[in-house]
Amino acid sequence: MPYRAPVSEFRFLFDHVVELATVSATERFAEADAETVDAILSEAGKMSEDVLAPLQRNGDLHPAVLENGVVRTSPGYADGYKAIAEGGWVSTSADPEHGGMGLPLTVTTAVNEMMASACLSLQLNPLMTQGQIEALEHHASDEIKALYLPKLISGEWSGTMNLTEPQAGSDVGALRSKAEPNGDGTYAITGQKIYISWGDNDFTGNVCHLVLARLPDGVPGTKGISLFMVPRNIPDENGTPGVANTLKVVSLEHKLGLHGSPTAVMQYDGATGWLIGKEHGGMAAMFTMMNNARLGVGVQGIGAGEGAYQHALAYALERKQGRAAVPGGTGTILDHADVRRMLTTMKAELFAARAIALANAVALDMATATGQADWTARAALLTPITKAHGTEVGMAVSELGLQVHGGMGFIEETGAAQYARDVRVTAIYEGTNGIQSMDLVARKMMDGGEAAYRLLDEIEAGAEAARETMPDLAQPVWSAAENLRETTEWLVGQDMSDRFAGALPYLRAFARVLGAHYHLKAASAGGDTRKSLAGFYISRLLPDHAANCAHARAGAEGLYALSPEDLAVA
Amino acid sequence: MPYRAPVSEFRFLFDHVVELATVSATERFAEADAETVDAILSEAGKMSEDVLAPLQRNGDLHPAVLENGVVRTSPGYADGYKAIAEGGWVSTSADPEHGGMGLPLTVTTAVNEMMASACLSLQLNPLMTQGQIEALEHHASDEIKALYLPKLISGEWSGTMNLTEPQAGSDVGALRSKAEPNGDGTYAITGQKIYISWGDNDFTGNVCHLVLARLPDGVPGTKGISLFMVPRNIPDENGTPGVANTLKVVSLEHKLGLHGSPTAVMQYDGATGWLIGKEHGGMAAMFTMMNNARLGVGVQGIGAGEGAYQHALAYALERKQGRAAVPGGTGTILDHADVRRMLTTMKAELFAARAIALANAVALDMATATGQADWTARAALLTPITKAHGTEVGMAVSELGLQVHGGMGFIEETGAAQYARDVRVTAIYEGTNGIQSMDLVARKMMDGGEAAYRLLDEIEAGAEAARETMPDLAQPVWSAAENLRETTEWLVGQDMSDRFAGALPYLRAFARVLGAHYHLKAASAGGDTRKSLAGFYISRLLPDHAANCAHARAGAEGLYALSPEDLAVA
Repeated sequence: MPYRAPVSEFRFLFDHVVELATVSATERFAEADAETVDAILSEAGKMSEDVLAPLQRNGDLHPAVLENGVVRTSPGYADGYKAIAEGGWVSTSADPEHGGMGLPLTVTTAVNEMMASACLSLQLNPLMTQGQIEALEHHASDEIKALYLPKLISGEWSGTMNLTEPQAGSDVGALRSKAEPNGDGTYAITGQKIYISWGDNDFTGNVCHLVLARLPDGVPGTKGISLFMVPRNIPDENGTPGVANTLKVVSLEHKLGLHGSPTAVMQYDGATGWLIGKEHGGMAAMFTMMNNARLGVGVQGIGAGEGAYQHALAYALERKQGRAAVPGGTGTILDHADVRRMLTTMKAELFAARAIALANAVALDMATATGQADWTARAALLTPITKAHGTEVGMAVSELGLQVHGGMGFIEETGAAQYARDVRVTAIYEGTNGIQSMDLVARKMMDGGEAAYRLLDEIEAGAEAARETMPDLAQPVWSAAENLRETTEWLVGQDMSDRFAGALPYLRAFARVLGAHYHLKAASAGGDTRKSLAGFYISRLLPDHAANCAHARAGAEGLYALSPEDLAVA
Repeated sequence: MPYRAPVSEFRFLFDHVVELATVSATERFAEADAETVDAILSEAGKMSEDVLAPLQRNGDLHPAVLENGVVRTSPGYADGYKAIAEGGWVSTSADPEHGGMGLPLTVTTAVNEMMASACLSLQLNPLMTQGQIEALEHHASDEIKALYLPKLISGEWSGTMNLTEPQAGSDVGALRSKAEPNGDGTYAITGQKIYISWGDNDFTGNVCHLVLARLPDGVPGTKGISLFMVPRNIPDENGTPGVANTLKVVSLEHKLGLHGSPTAVMQYDGATGWLIGKEHGGMAAMFTMMNNARLGVGVQGIGAGEGAYQHALAYALERKQGRAAVPGGTGTILDHADVRRMLTTMKAELFAARAIALANAVALDMATATGQADWTARAALLTPITKAHGTEVGMAVSELGLQVHGGMGFIEETGAAQYARDVRVTAIYEGTNGIQSMDLVARKMMDGGEAAYRLLDEIEAGAEAARETMPDLAQPVWSAAENLRETTEWLVGQDMSDRFAGALPYLRAFARVLGAHYHLKAASAGGDTRKSLAGFYISRLLPDHAANCAHARAGAEGLYALSPEDLAVA
């Protein structure tokens, strides 16, 4: 699985589309100058190409297994992880006070994408740790920070998130895990957690579980939940992992994909935990972590898609089948219109999704650097879009990659199917895409649509500016933004049931318009190739925004007109 | 995997949407009266529910294997096959002269769908045999017919199709397999064939391979190809399978899905074959078989989708998670808007795809019964649409079914993922969906769009007729048909490169308008439930026809504007 890190693509996006310079101009991120960022991209890219990409098939063919209570990871994963940790790639954004590089999340986002392209199942490990670092930085006591952060940031230890229980998935508030005070400042955690990504491994010195549980006086629902640090081995006074905590991996799931990532059922039997944040404040702490994790998962989708794209393009450029007389023909199946359509769609979709994710990261960085509410609102608005759209693009692109391979795509040895299998979970975990869309039309519209309108103003201003030089590209973007504005106005005037009925189509329409906007920016800044790709996106893919806007406005009444019995008739 | 055969749905479609009565009114199919058809649907449905559905997981968990040159099929498959054969379900349409029931293909299509829902990998076996029966009925000598047809129709023997070679996939004309006359009327067949579905098994008395190969005087390309019957065991004078032919299964593929179906690499080493049809007339004979096989594969997509739908609906009706106050709420996740959207989309898409497939079958039956060119042209037009759209619906519906399951969808034990994995190949084999779309815009438009316009006339007339009583449903269907008509007019005026550039989007637009048409027909004939489902489809799904029409008309220039080097930039 050869992989080429799209370093020049990131540079172009940073310079001309998402304007990383705005971030570098802040005091907080002054060190992220062009030279530093270039070095990071090159090094992380090289590590992804040389070390991680060769592991991709290993994880699929030799899944992590549970042997006598111990997780044995896939061949080479320990070395791959070592390269990630030693390069400082667990989290390039972590606080320098605890050994991090303190770089913008925008840069980390690019690094994450490259690692995800190369080996998604292994990249999930540091992604989980990143979320934990973020949560601890914001909510842990100084003592916990001093003990855990240096080891998590260096990659010596890894971190997990423990939310889900069999009866509590999307409805986290239904969880039953309990926390009892031990009287010494620690808590006894008891309960079962499922779907714990990288619940254990055989290459980090400790595994640190952040576990949601309910204190004895915790009310039912999300408001009674607290967050605890529950390490696999309890650190002694020197911070060395000591006695084993009373927790265990019960089993690993047999999954559609991502076989290299052990997905554990975890059992906690009075395990010793430390409170993170306030009592009953677990959800707030989790949300800190979840927002960045949602961006991170969206980027997993894009990364997997990029891997699938490169894989399919390489195949197309080798495979000869039939003939099509086209200008600049290659004599391969790339000359055939439908193959060209698929590959160009993949490239155009990936560009758009990547731009949205990076713009989201820029907004988060600017919120961090400036504390301005506008940036916070923009980041909040973009997060569910990045997550759901990035993962949908990852799935669609991987499916197209498989299709480009024809019959070979259905044969596992080819590797095309693995991208599609691996990426599939990204639409589910970290909040299903349906949950993301509800977040977008409910919580993220509590401002009456203000953040959305501000973004639409920018999009329309961009289209206005481009109208002179590229009318064929600019006009459709402007019109689509207007349609989305009207849909947004309609949406914020409705009750929740009407909003929810069209939530995912609305999110898709929003992503489409954003994608067109960033393509237009690229076309304005770049040469003929950028214009051609933007033209492809705007003329062939953007039109579906209208269908999604129509669907978004169709309302709840028609959605619930069919009874459960009607649905069941066979 | 419980499965309920949608018998009442087929009855409704036969009676009110595709008008099977038109077929039954012909002399050729006079025996296919309502009572007979009802009995067939009920019996085949029951067999699918009781015998085949329990095998679905077996095939996935215990794939067919090759042991010492012998294919061992999945546990229970031999019994499942026996039930299919004994029920007469290998082909209910085969000629009564050789033991068939001679029923309309429309009825067979329903039977095929039910078997496909219950166990796709096993159903592929009789589907291949059906194609072979069809080819022999049309092209074989009386001697071959008398020897092979009764055993194929009864299911005592099974049939395969051998087209593909490593260098000859979509480009069949590139095949290298050779046929040399033996001087006794037989031929010696030599070559390697790949992707041979059900290349062997351990439950039929013989396996009859239809093999494409080139005679010594065969010209390069498709015009030099001939078709041969090459049985695994050469029948003796009594028709009993005797000496083993010089052919073998070299290996079985390790596939993404459909594990229960052995996909073989076949090696022919001077194997004895009998010419079917004329010398160098192999493609014509294959096309007879391929057209029906394409309908059959489209129906596989729909069948798999129906299975995935029932599976997901059952899960949704059990799973409690959060609460949503909706009219007639169930207290399950079905109350949540996005889950309801997904399941209703699945149902609405399946109805449309099924109606298209059955209308296609009706056209084929009417062509058979009347010989009228209009019916032949209609069938030819609908075939690539049924194949590509049916399989795309199968994939999309299976993906939605997986998503409805949330985290459980990614766990293989749930079974949801299997539907998505199994159905994936249907978009590839029997001509990729890209090939189908090229067929639609090229060969099927050689009439200048006449068959398409005739269908559009009917759609518009239907919308006109419904305008009075259901204006909200009728008007969008009429408008969409007009848009498709304009797009068709544009298309037939273009050269092939412009047609091919938008071929698949055009096919999707066509399927969408057809789907809306059949939903409208159902709404006109049915009660409130049919109206609600039609309303869902027309207001929420139909709008994307416009995006596809726009894409269809975007042309080749922009598609080829990006060079292969542009695509490869990273």
